[in-house]
Amino acid sequence: MPAAPTRSLQVITGVAAMRTAVRALQQRGETVGFVPTMGALHVGHLSLVDAAAAECDRVVASIFVNPTQFGPSEDFTKYPRPLERDLELLRERGCDLVFVPEAAEMYPQGYGTSIDVGPVAVPWEGAARPGHFAGVATVVLKLFECVPADRAYFGRKDYQQTLVVRRMAADLNLPIDVRVCPIVRDADGLALSSRNVYLSPDERRRALALSQSLRLAEEIISRGERDALVVRERMLALIAAVGGVAVEYVAIVRDGTVDEAPEIDGPVTIAVAARVGTTRLIDNVQIG
Amino acid sequence: MPAAPTRSLQVITGVAAMRTAVRALQQRGETVGFVPTMGALHVGHLSLVDAAAAECDRVVASIFVNPTQFGPSEDFTKYPRPLERDLELLRERGCDLVFVPEAAEMYPQGYGTSIDVGPVAVPWEGAARPGHFAGVATVVLKLFECVPADRAYFGRKDYQQTLVVRRMAADLNLPIDVRVCPIVRDADGLALSSRNVYLSPDERRRALALSQSLRLAEEIISRGERDALVVRERMLALIAAVGGVAVEYVAIVRDGTVDEAPEIDGPVTIAVAARVGTTRLIDNVQIG
Repeated sequence: MPAAPTRSLQVITGVAAMRTAVRALQQRGETVGFVPTMGALHVGHLSLVDAAAAECDRVVASIFVNPTQFGPSEDFTKYPRPLERDLELLRERGCDLVFVPEAAEMYPQGYGTSIDVGPVAVPWEGAARPGHFAGVATVVLKLFECVPADRAYFGRKDYQQTLVVRRMAADLNLPIDVRVCPIVRDADGLALSSRNVYLSPDERRRALALSQSLRLAEEIISRGERDALVVRERMLALIAAVGGVAVEYVAIVRDGTVDEAPEIDGPVTIAVAARVGTTRLIDNVQIG
Repeated sequence: MPAAPTRSLQVITGVAAMRTAVRALQQRGETVGFVPTMGALHVGHLSLVDAAAAECDRVVASIFVNPTQFGPSEDFTKYPRPLERDLELLRERGCDLVFVPEAAEMYPQGYGTSIDVGPVAVPWEGAARPGHFAGVATVVLKLFECVPADRAYFGRKDYQQTLVVRRMAADLNLPIDVRVCPIVRDADGLALSSRNVYLSPDERRRALALSQSLRLAEEIISRGERDALVVRERMLALIAAVGGVAVEYVAIVRDGTVDEAPEIDGPVTIAVAARVGTTRLIDNVQIG
């Protein structure tokens, strides 16, 4: 019996070649799913590839560590870039094409454009990371223009980012369906993130306070608590008890928005951002 | 001999229907040229339809008076909207499809996104009309998403707008070729503009000072003048002598940029903006 053929993964670096490849698939009647990433892939990213493969005939990923979404004091230069490993993971997972653009083609000399999606990008992550969502929106639009797919897949761990991308897609009449997939967690509850590799063993243990505080919130809301202030205080107390975790915010918002829900009288998302050592982590849960 | 068949013009108002129509043409192997307008069509617009027809198999125009590119004190409400006449002109000129979107579909509730193209949008028209180019860039991108044509046609009368659109198209990897067509003038030199209808007979006569000052600039540069200050002073003196024309700016810039050229040692564009009565007019000429 012959060995199963090795699944092939085509790596494309040029914008024109990428667009041509996607259109050629579509002209054959195939649907294309797109998974934009900054590389350093983990099982969360791969779950997006799986979701795309389940809904589309072909899957295209991109790997681009986008400089414009990092602040000047953030971790752009040290952000992990294990390209060969990433390509191997995508190949194993059945991804068909991967777009690995050059920064020089993405941001050529004279580059000046940025996209502001308005109020949804202002609070929470927007306030903590000035310019971040303009960088995200702009590069996502650029990637959508380079990879004119039918559907694009984003992870819910970046809750506010999913709102930013959906707002942009609606406002700019983008011909792409934005799909949002569940958070993937390690067995101990830590939300998967490319930044988890920065954590020392002690920090990693303390970082569990984030997901633990979200589970606590779920519990006390399921037992009838409706006051967001009480929920937030209980979460902050849990995190403080663990120690070594500097909370940036605990957002209790109406689900699908960035608007605070003082009273929990409908579906909410609770999002938390914190530093553990020098590593910034975010996590969230949808309730109701 | 039978009469020539009446050329048909399909009017489309829905975004999805518009996109589908363009893609259907392209899937048949036809190229599509796009002429975005705010209606109130004149021969300048029709020259863009001609240019599109000469280079493309099919021509799509759009008519949309975009509210977001007008300032609060500008002429959005009184801007002329002779829709039936516009459609007749497009039909006669051989336009195949026209997109007439509804404001409610273009700017639905919750709309928040805008596009800033950076330094090219800052001086001259950008300074005179705060927010104008953000409104232009955003609606042009939206129209490009609704009408995914191969080429788009803009008139050179809006010189800085052509730079803004080209900058945006390059920066955002838009898959459309931005073409720029010459200014069309009345026999007496007045650049065609939908706003010329606002001019009284006396104002119209005074408005000729704009094109006359540009012709004067051409003459004195062709005779060897290299000092932009001198050229500007001669233009301003001519306009002042005519009277009744309030100049907003005379820009002498390196051609293809918005950067002032103190010395005329290469191709330049000279652009002028002025009010004649309450009507704001712009004009420009490319020299060298």
